[in-house]
Amino acid sequence: MKLYGYYRSSAAFRIRIALNIKELELDHIFVHLRKGDQRSEQYLGVNPQGLVPALELDDGNIITQSMGIIEYLDEAYPNTVSLLPDNMFGRARVRSISSAIACDIHPLNNLRVLNFISQNIDDGESIANDKWYKHWIQVGMNGVEALLNNSPDTGEFCHGNNPTMADCCLIPQIYNAERFGCDMTDYPKSMRINSNCLSLKAFRKAMPEEQADFE
Amino acid sequence: MKLYGYYRSSAAFRIRIALNIKELELDHIFVHLRKGDQRSEQYLGVNPQGLVPALELDDGNIITQSMGIIEYLDEAYPNTVSLLPDNMFGRARVRSISSAIACDIHPLNNLRVLNFISQNIDDGESIANDKWYKHWIQVGMNGVEALLNNSPDTGEFCHGNNPTMADCCLIPQIYNAERFGCDMTDYPKSMRINSNCLSLKAFRKAMPEEQADFE
Repeated sequence: MKLYGYYRSSAAFRIRIALNIKELELDHIFVHLRKGDQRSEQYLGVNPQGLVPALELDDGNIITQSMGIIEYLDEAYPNTVSLLPDNMFGRARVRSISSAIACDIHPLNNLRVLNFISQNIDDGESIANDKWYKHWIQVGMNGVEALLNNSPDTGEFCHGNNPTMADCCLIPQIYNAERFGCDMTDYPKSMRINSNCLSLKAFRKAMPEEQADFE
Repeated sequence: MKLYGYYRSSAAFRIRIALNIKELELDHIFVHLRKGDQRSEQYLGVNPQGLVPALELDDGNIITQSMGIIEYLDEAYPNTVSLLPDNMFGRARVRSISSAIACDIHPLNNLRVLNFISQNIDDGESIANDKWYKHWIQVGMNGVEALLNNSPDTGEFCHGNNPTMADCCLIPQIYNAERFGCDMTDYPKSMRINSNCLSLKAFRKAMPEEQADFE
């Protein structure tokens, strides 16, 4: 298998964590998003959406979208550590928390969105001062923190005492929020889970700084 | 079961389609998003994210996020029509197309985002002229159309000849795009699938105009 990714992409970061937890190895192909490699004819042949990550299977089939990839890895490698709980409601809860990050926070603060605003409609301050970025982190993390506080199923990790797909989504989001200087003191539960995750090598090894294309 | 929704919410629209295809009945609770009911203390007790849809199970447990709800319905009611293919790669493909809509298009054009831009950073034209809305429809639908054209697995529906979760996501997105006056002629494959879906009562019955809270 090959993973098309970029050190700074938090969707690719999610997959790197999943691969490390599952102890799966593959070839990493780097798509330099800031140089626009994702819009090359070659990469659009891999993923016509022009986004990373994309997983290329040994038969040449391509799977795109981070949650789809993680679900696939769980199904395709049943003898590895599972990233979804073995009960139905638990799986639903993990998918919900994952979507609360992957649908409700991340897409709004993606590089292409920040670029579009600053190039087209910005008042000159929203992007420069991170007003936009911090607003959606605050709204989104308030929701995630409440989902975590709301349930007895939250443990050392987002769901119980083992990492799941939800943690694969949460940790890259917190990493990014901190990089943009967001104040995270209002999210103690999320931050405790972040510490617990970062005590594991599988999460640390997946960090942008640890990737071969880091610059 | 109870579904908390709103006629105009396209994420709730997805669930209504899924319920109709599965022939599952439940109580509909209406949360008036334009009046701000989603921020009431009562509703935040149901879903602390303050978003619809939310599914309340008979035991009182709550499942939020449309993709998590559809996956749950598929698992919890195995004797109903399945919205995910029975092979692994097919499931991955359906989840990818679903995310290409639910993560990469819909969150950017959500009411709360349009409101934030027009209230905070708009140049006075981006929202009024639907420049923002149409841009993300164009970028997003180009990707979805390419994903559909890219694969022999696309049939009368997004994946094969039966509706899946991907169609539950696509049809509400096209409905909204048309409501905003987007030109859809560049997406013939998507529009043909849209016609095929709308020939089915399960999709038509789920439309906003057919809901009891429509106004």
